[in-house]
Amino acid sequence: MGAFSFSVLRTCGAARRGVLRTPHGAVDTPAFMPVGTRAAVKGLSPAQLAETRTQIVLANTYHLMLRPGAAAVERLGGLHRFMGWGGAILTDSGGFQVYSLDELRRVDDDGVAFRSHLDGTPVRLTPESAIQIQNQLGADIVMVLDECPALPAEPGIMQDAVRRTVAWARRCRAAHQRTDQALYGIVQGGLDLELRRACLGQLVEIGFDGYALGGLSVGEPPKEMYTFLEGFAGELPADRPRYLMGVGTPADLVQAVTAGVDQFDCVLPTRNGRKGYAFTSAGTVRLRNACHKLAPEPLDGACDCYTCRSFSRGYLRHLFLSGEVLGGTLVSLHNIHFYQALMRQMRAALEGGTFDAWRRVFEGGPATRDLKEGEP
Amino acid sequence: MGAFSFSVLRTCGAARRGVLRTPHGAVDTPAFMPVGTRAAVKGLSPAQLAETRTQIVLANTYHLMLRPGAAAVERLGGLHRFMGWGGAILTDSGGFQVYSLDELRRVDDDGVAFRSHLDGTPVRLTPESAIQIQNQLGADIVMVLDECPALPAEPGIMQDAVRRTVAWARRCRAAHQRTDQALYGIVQGGLDLELRRACLGQLVEIGFDGYALGGLSVGEPPKEMYTFLEGFAGELPADRPRYLMGVGTPADLVQAVTAGVDQFDCVLPTRNGRKGYAFTSAGTVRLRNACHKLAPEPLDGACDCYTCRSFSRGYLRHLFLSGEVLGGTLVSLHNIHFYQALMRQMRAALEGGTFDAWRRVFEGGPATRDLKEGEP
Repeated sequence: MGAFSFSVLRTCGAARRGVLRTPHGAVDTPAFMPVGTRAAVKGLSPAQLAETRTQIVLANTYHLMLRPGAAAVERLGGLHRFMGWGGAILTDSGGFQVYSLDELRRVDDDGVAFRSHLDGTPVRLTPESAIQIQNQLGADIVMVLDECPALPAEPGIMQDAVRRTVAWARRCRAAHQRTDQALYGIVQGGLDLELRRACLGQLVEIGFDGYALGGLSVGEPPKEMYTFLEGFAGELPADRPRYLMGVGTPADLVQAVTAGVDQFDCVLPTRNGRKGYAFTSAGTVRLRNACHKLAPEPLDGACDCYTCRSFSRGYLRHLFLSGEVLGGTLVSLHNIHFYQALMRQMRAALEGGTFDAWRRVFEGGPATRDLKEGEP
Repeated sequence: MGAFSFSVLRTCGAARRGVLRTPHGAVDTPAFMPVGTRAAVKGLSPAQLAETRTQIVLANTYHLMLRPGAAAVERLGGLHRFMGWGGAILTDSGGFQVYSLDELRRVDDDGVAFRSHLDGTPVRLTPESAIQIQNQLGADIVMVLDECPALPAEPGIMQDAVRRTVAWARRCRAAHQRTDQALYGIVQGGLDLELRRACLGQLVEIGFDGYALGGLSVGEPPKEMYTFLEGFAGELPADRPRYLMGVGTPADLVQAVTAGVDQFDCVLPTRNGRKGYAFTSAGTVRLRNACHKLAPEPLDGACDCYTCRSFSRGYLRHLFLSGEVLGGTLVSLHNIHFYQALMRQMRAALEGGTFDAWRRVFEGGPATRDLKEGEP
């Protein structure tokens, strides 16, 4: 792990301010990673993404292994060069997407067999191939293949998933070839603290460069996730980055940072952006609402992103009603900027030792009027 | 026309190098205007558009009068502020779009009645309302309402269209209120030189800040347009900008500049860009072709646009095959950059007195292997 290091600079209770060093630059933590599923953060150029002061993005192994294929990405210089992004990149292992295929997959102890959602081709993913593909893609941080059951799950199913997750993590560790890529383990076990502890203990024995919490934000109420994080996140090794996968809303991020999490990824800023839903310091703005038709004000008067500096809500609404893709681009840009500004605020409060006070103001404020996917 | 002026700096045969001064900056001519139909150049932010060194864009009165409406644009500060574009803007009069509605319109001497393509609402456009709407939109250059029959047209139909175009131009001139907006007349008459001359003579008597050639590139073979331009463009007043509407391919622009035209607009760079067709110095590149799958080279090795500096053909192809809108944005950005670089090359050759030699090289070269809309 010579090319990769992690330092905690300061703590406030369980919350941590740190720095991840990667071959593609430093990442200040707590860090938010926008999602570039197919090696593109939807609608944004890397230059626009850099404007949001994003330092690390996530790309999806499952999508890239099917198209254009890991060998094609490798031939075109690896993921950084391929997508024109000079910052850090993390790739997931493909497991989560495979598990969401439902009908199309079959799991055994060796790995998982599934059919491509693109053309039905049979594909097999094992711990070894998931790592080999991620070695070819060339991200700075790669993830083990895990098994992630939907919640709620029967205890037997969850125990099986943990057993397999640990066995696969051991095989991933053995298969991992590139010393310039960090490898993270993934802790499974649902909301069962004992099962999570058993999983974590075995993963720590194997030894990873970072530890991720998988299988959260998969259908359980936010309160249950918060309670779980409060009880468990602090047990992850203190000298390694802690990554909460697929989470979440601004309120989720603040709760999880409070519990000691360092890294996040989520599609919400871009998915909501494409639908015309903006995160703002005054709560969620739904741009299609008629009340914005003649509104001269920016999305968020407290925001200094390109979208807020340049355009009125009235114009942005016009773009959505007219079907102009520029609308999705501009609101996604704002939403990612909003998330990154939130992370900067948290990091500054942690540096200044004022995180608890900052959090009380945030939690009493209007920005927590969040919109979950699927809400009107 | 105090806020607006035009000077010819140098000529080479009929070709001219000039400068248009507007309240939103100088426009070097010959100039290409990217099309922002609904107050957005499709897929590009104004900042990305500025990177292509575009100085002036076109927006469509017809689309904006229907949605969001001229009053809404005016309330939101006028078109420049509305779309966040600090450079110059030209609005067409809406006539051309109305004439392409076919079944939905009825023309008489007073104006044209049609039904909105959005919701079927009956709308009426007269010379007076076309100008009033453009006064509200607030572009730097506005256009008279004209009648533009499809080619080929019966002589009687074309004569009627010219008579109406002149009568409407006179009413537009009288209705035009804003001294900070230039008003251009539009010459109609198809490919009939005598009819065009009669139309132009009457328009010059009325007096306009610029003269446009309408009704070309509407179905006739390019050769016929070139012959017509060679015979007619030089008759447009030498001290006023000459604008060839809706044209065209790179080869079309070079031919028209040679004949003495100063201004152009066309959807080709963006429409082709969204389809994955790129204009390059080596001819058209079709990105979906399998030959680009592993291609590490940029779209155009001779181009210094953001797309060519940052991405391989292999990555751009991946974006199109994956349905990522970023592909359309990046190729549109390149195509507009290519058009603007072509205009800069022509302007430099005109300044240096080497335009004829430049043109012979261009016409013998591969960049003229152009792709027309609809070709494979």
